[in-house]
Amino acid sequence: MTDTATAAPKADPMLHEDGSPERLAIDTIRTLSMDAVQKANSGHPGTPMALAPVGYTLWSKFLRYDPKHADWPNRDRFVLSVGHASMLLYALIHLAKIEEIGADGEKSGKEAVSLDDIKQFRQLSSKTPGHPEYRHTTGVETTTGPLGQGCGNSVGMAIAERWLAARYNKDGFTLFDHDVYTICGDGDMMEGVSAEAASLAGHLKLSNLCWIYDSNHISIEGATDLAFDEDVGLRFDAYGWNVIHVDDANDTAALTRAIETFKATNDKPTFIVVHSVIGYGSPKAGSEKAHGEPLGEENIRLTKQAYGWPEDKSFYVPDGVIEHFNGAIAERGAKLRDEWVALTDKYRDAYPELSAELDLLLKDELPEGWDADIPTFEADAKGVASRDSGGKVLNAIAKNVPWLIGGSADLAPSTKTDIKGQPSFEGDNYAGRNFHFGIREHGMGAIVNGMALSHLRSYGSTFLVFVDYMRAPVRLSAIMEVGAIWVFTHDSIGVGEDGPTHQPIEHLATLRAIPGLDTIRPSDANEVVAAWKAVLKDASTPAALIMSRQALPTLDRTKYASADGLEKGGYVLADSDGTPDVILIASGSEVSLAVDAHEKLKADGVKSRVVSMPSWYRYELQDAAYKESVLPREVRARVAIEMAGSIGWDRYVGLDGATVTMSTFGASAPLAKLQDKFGFTVDNVVKVARQVMETK
Amino acid sequence: MTDTATAAPKADPMLHEDGSPERLAIDTIRTLSMDAVQKANSGHPGTPMALAPVGYTLWSKFLRYDPKHADWPNRDRFVLSVGHASMLLYALIHLAKIEEIGADGEKSGKEAVSLDDIKQFRQLSSKTPGHPEYRHTTGVETTTGPLGQGCGNSVGMAIAERWLAARYNKDGFTLFDHDVYTICGDGDMMEGVSAEAASLAGHLKLSNLCWIYDSNHISIEGATDLAFDEDVGLRFDAYGWNVIHVDDANDTAALTRAIETFKATNDKPTFIVVHSVIGYGSPKAGSEKAHGEPLGEENIRLTKQAYGWPEDKSFYVPDGVIEHFNGAIAERGAKLRDEWVALTDKYRDAYPELSAELDLLLKDELPEGWDADIPTFEADAKGVASRDSGGKVLNAIAKNVPWLIGGSADLAPSTKTDIKGQPSFEGDNYAGRNFHFGIREHGMGAIVNGMALSHLRSYGSTFLVFVDYMRAPVRLSAIMEVGAIWVFTHDSIGVGEDGPTHQPIEHLATLRAIPGLDTIRPSDANEVVAAWKAVLKDASTPAALIMSRQALPTLDRTKYASADGLEKGGYVLADSDGTPDVILIASGSEVSLAVDAHEKLKADGVKSRVVSMPSWYRYELQDAAYKESVLPREVRARVAIEMAGSIGWDRYVGLDGATVTMSTFGASAPLAKLQDKFGFTVDNVVKVARQVMETK
Repeated sequence: MTDTATAAPKADPMLHEDGSPERLAIDTIRTLSMDAVQKANSGHPGTPMALAPVGYTLWSKFLRYDPKHADWPNRDRFVLSVGHASMLLYALIHLAKIEEIGADGEKSGKEAVSLDDIKQFRQLSSKTPGHPEYRHTTGVETTTGPLGQGCGNSVGMAIAERWLAARYNKDGFTLFDHDVYTICGDGDMMEGVSAEAASLAGHLKLSNLCWIYDSNHISIEGATDLAFDEDVGLRFDAYGWNVIHVDDANDTAALTRAIETFKATNDKPTFIVVHSVIGYGSPKAGSEKAHGEPLGEENIRLTKQAYGWPEDKSFYVPDGVIEHFNGAIAERGAKLRDEWVALTDKYRDAYPELSAELDLLLKDELPEGWDADIPTFEADAKGVASRDSGGKVLNAIAKNVPWLIGGSADLAPSTKTDIKGQPSFEGDNYAGRNFHFGIREHGMGAIVNGMALSHLRSYGSTFLVFVDYMRAPVRLSAIMEVGAIWVFTHDSIGVGEDGPTHQPIEHLATLRAIPGLDTIRPSDANEVVAAWKAVLKDASTPAALIMSRQALPTLDRTKYASADGLEKGGYVLADSDGTPDVILIASGSEVSLAVDAHEKLKADGVKSRVVSMPSWYRYELQDAAYKESVLPREVRARVAIEMAGSIGWDRYVGLDGATVTMSTFGASAPLAKLQDKFGFTVDNVVKVARQVMETK
Repeated sequence: MTDTATAAPKADPMLHEDGSPERLAIDTIRTLSMDAVQKANSGHPGTPMALAPVGYTLWSKFLRYDPKHADWPNRDRFVLSVGHASMLLYALIHLAKIEEIGADGEKSGKEAVSLDDIKQFRQLSSKTPGHPEYRHTTGVETTTGPLGQGCGNSVGMAIAERWLAARYNKDGFTLFDHDVYTICGDGDMMEGVSAEAASLAGHLKLSNLCWIYDSNHISIEGATDLAFDEDVGLRFDAYGWNVIHVDDANDTAALTRAIETFKATNDKPTFIVVHSVIGYGSPKAGSEKAHGEPLGEENIRLTKQAYGWPEDKSFYVPDGVIEHFNGAIAERGAKLRDEWVALTDKYRDAYPELSAELDLLLKDELPEGWDADIPTFEADAKGVASRDSGGKVLNAIAKNVPWLIGGSADLAPSTKTDIKGQPSFEGDNYAGRNFHFGIREHGMGAIVNGMALSHLRSYGSTFLVFVDYMRAPVRLSAIMEVGAIWVFTHDSIGVGEDGPTHQPIEHLATLRAIPGLDTIRPSDANEVVAAWKAVLKDASTPAALIMSRQALPTLDRTKYASADGLEKGGYVLADSDGTPDVILIASGSEVSLAVDAHEKLKADGVKSRVVSMPSWYRYELQDAAYKESVLPREVRARVAIEMAGSIGWDRYVGLDGATVTMSTFGASAPLAKLQDKFGFTVDNVVKVARQVMETK
């Protein structure tokens, strides 16, 4: 194909010059994209138009995918990191006739994206939202939109494939050998998260990973060379990738050769630089005006003319296009999947234990006795840091759940997240379970999401303050409802000497503010046990486990309430007879402080109650009667205690309560000095409790 | 210098083999660092020990810095991006005898870092906190610790120098020609933010920028090749930098040649890869054990032995070391500064207007009449998006404040932050005021901070949801108290069709949670005016301006209260006679909704009050009497309305109030459909208002 943007209209509006089904399919993708954006009066037509040949070539010639079984575990993964080009994906899903997966993975018999769905592009509750949404539309492997995230996810998916292959493949049983393809753009390449992920992918020699970089030289403000003229290919050389250039996105033969080279490469990931023209074929071709707005009716007419397309037809899919496109994919995919199903049946006999394990993994279930080795902790005034008890609990679970895997952004010795006795996941050992993500929090987040999307119970850990570097993937884990586990330690000014840059203040609030994220800050080792248990049981709710650096007393649970109360998010830990005069509410390291204040108040004849509130998310899910039993409406003298900012605690203390919290950044000093300075002492808590009792 | 870690102890404990002042100075830096970390029982000795020769060479031979005038505007900037190696910087400041800058920039005559200060390393209120803190310790150019930030800051500082030079230098008046040096480590190199900043620095050809990369092959989890084996030098080639290798950090001659090459390079930034041994000279040399913990008394003894240092002396500064080190710097620096002062005196006569402008800039003051061209907006029911009115106000101020400069992470056409008629800041035009940061939010944030640290009123803009990519620099602007201006548009589900990945929900709360950040969400064009005015007046408080995508009615301020109320954060916008039955509190786009509900309630005979609450930060600074006048304690029927998560609003509505807010992520659809779906309608607000009135 050698057409240019200025090609003259063709004589026969119904047929291309070359009359090939390929051209028809490609221009169908383009025109569906243009028409959908125009009808929605919103969206991004230019990139789907530019990349239609790439999508066509990859899907029709290479992608191993059974449209009737979109959840086949060994399917190739296709990630559209340029999520704004969602119409490219919707058009491909439509033309491939991917079948919607119903509730509980049942076959629905419905099209995942029908032509009517495409006509409802960007409308409320449609299958075709502005950016692709995982779980919402079958065929969408991950939610993309925030640039660079899809790149990172794809590294996680490629890691997952390598890990599954290393664990479950046996001689004669290649259960896993799929590839992961990602389409990324200039924006992805400018974002640091993709740089982090690419560097790690090169290090790990992920030869099952192929990024196709759409170099179109256009971004929203204009030509990319306003801000971006680095040699991206050379950069990927530096990362240890295999770099291939395709000079023209319309050259499907060159694209084919490039992807064949990828498939023949066994020692490194592949980066294909494809030069394209945004808005190809339209009067706006090659301009930022083709990026993020409808082309306009007249331009659409002219573009269809240039394609040799019927100008008066919208959402037009010529006869034979679906048969041609779906046929190629379905024939290859069904055969591969059938073979795979037959193989897994044999595998069941040959490797019954591994087979049973894999079944559980793929169903997001847990093995019987998964929690059998979790310790309970004896009362201990000296106690243990929750990062340490967390490490013990993690290890006890990891023993029985082999697909609980993860690591840290170069802080494992501090976050205590290593699985003892297990090797590292490295280029020469893909069976390893300990991941060295490097000092790349953002990349780690996106990668952990990609692993979770492949059914691994994956975790990533760093210091709580550095969640600032990886908020986007944490948020996306909540949007996607994947059970990624985030372990954030060093959770307060308890960090001590490292000072304000390393002491989280606002971070608890910023995590609690994310809808659907279960942020849990356990108060002692037994709440750590309850927290990990709660998290493991739910593979569709991501969780942030917030752990202390410093030792926390292990509370005497014969004297105070059981830590199982954590499942409800907040519970009465210590109480007095009758209606309390004051309620002390705390989380994490401040719970023992609240208990000490409670004992002091008790000695002074004040009836206080201590509520341990490790998870607001869980507490808010409880019914009104339970909440009333914990925080009775009539008791307005309430004090919340937390070595973090106050924001949000007012929900529980109200206008008449008070907070013992941080209102500034911290400082560099030993913890005891900081606790004095900022008022986290029994005396101060008692004083504030008496103040709110007087006010009420 | 060719010693190795295993060198035998020298015979004479008081003198090095070569007896050179250079060796003495270098080993003084090393031993001070070891001793300080040991005494604090906390900190990072290994990198100061490794990089002492680098710090020594750079400062003593090159740095243009007058220790008696640490605020000399044309000083070279030294950024320690590896902030955990703070003892390196404190030792350098001490040995250079930098003088503390007192209040109001007065000379204090005190040492910025005395030997006693070093002995108080990491203690409460000391001048030597765990990580270097800007404003806290003279000589610290920026607060570092979170890795990669210093790299980004340094790009901003280099940009600032180029801009100042382009604007103020004239023939014969080279007022600005300083360089910016940054020491960065493996962690910096793994973080995406430094990749983003480096790519832009290469694009902008910042030849005044030199990064010295400490390649020590060690990170916290062990050897860097656990996670990081890319060719970093080649990557910087790809970015368009000048790459130089120094094989041994102890080779001060090679370091000198490298820095000379940097100074002779005029068309690109320079990247010097220095291979070093962490914990050089100690038994832990070359190991991660030398990174983040004290060496231990015995190891310190052995290390001092290896250095040929008196084993029994702690915090030992041999005679002549300060004279040698300070002497070299002070002689060069004082001469340069004196010449500069003389030159600026002449400049005052030759270019009185520019000179006066520069004076204001350097004092963080504003020119008279700076706000003279800001428009006021007539009442208008159709109204204008606050991003649009924001763009108008920005332009009106920019007309009179030439050093108000900034740009966007490739979204200027949407965030409306271009300064009209002004050129772009590019490699061939450093006088430009519009910055194309590229799709690099994190890099933009760190760069804007660097610009602000050089007294520019710098701003960076993107969509609010993407603050997730740049939280660390926003936080650091608040820690440092620099007046960076963050413009975040598309501030709610008002984003519409782009869907949940692009619709901020929790982001307002996460910004409000940052101590010291003024987050302002204006309700209409006249509040936009008040917001920009308030922000400009305070150069030591960073602000986040939160702007809408969609049009907001311009309220009739003859009927309702003046928008000047914004200065107090919250104010009574609309009221009824006597004590209100219910108070409606809102910010931004929801204020007009509250006003409409108020009018409806009024028509129904309900006395309601509308409080516009654009800035919680400002509101919390008001005294109790003012707050009581806005939100009387006795009125408990309160409703907060905001198209964002509810977290934090309970502070104002209490246990008896309610919120009309978002409890889930948004959805992809036109805004009107979303408003219906999520209850942002007059009817729903009225309904909720009546509910809280009944409950009370």
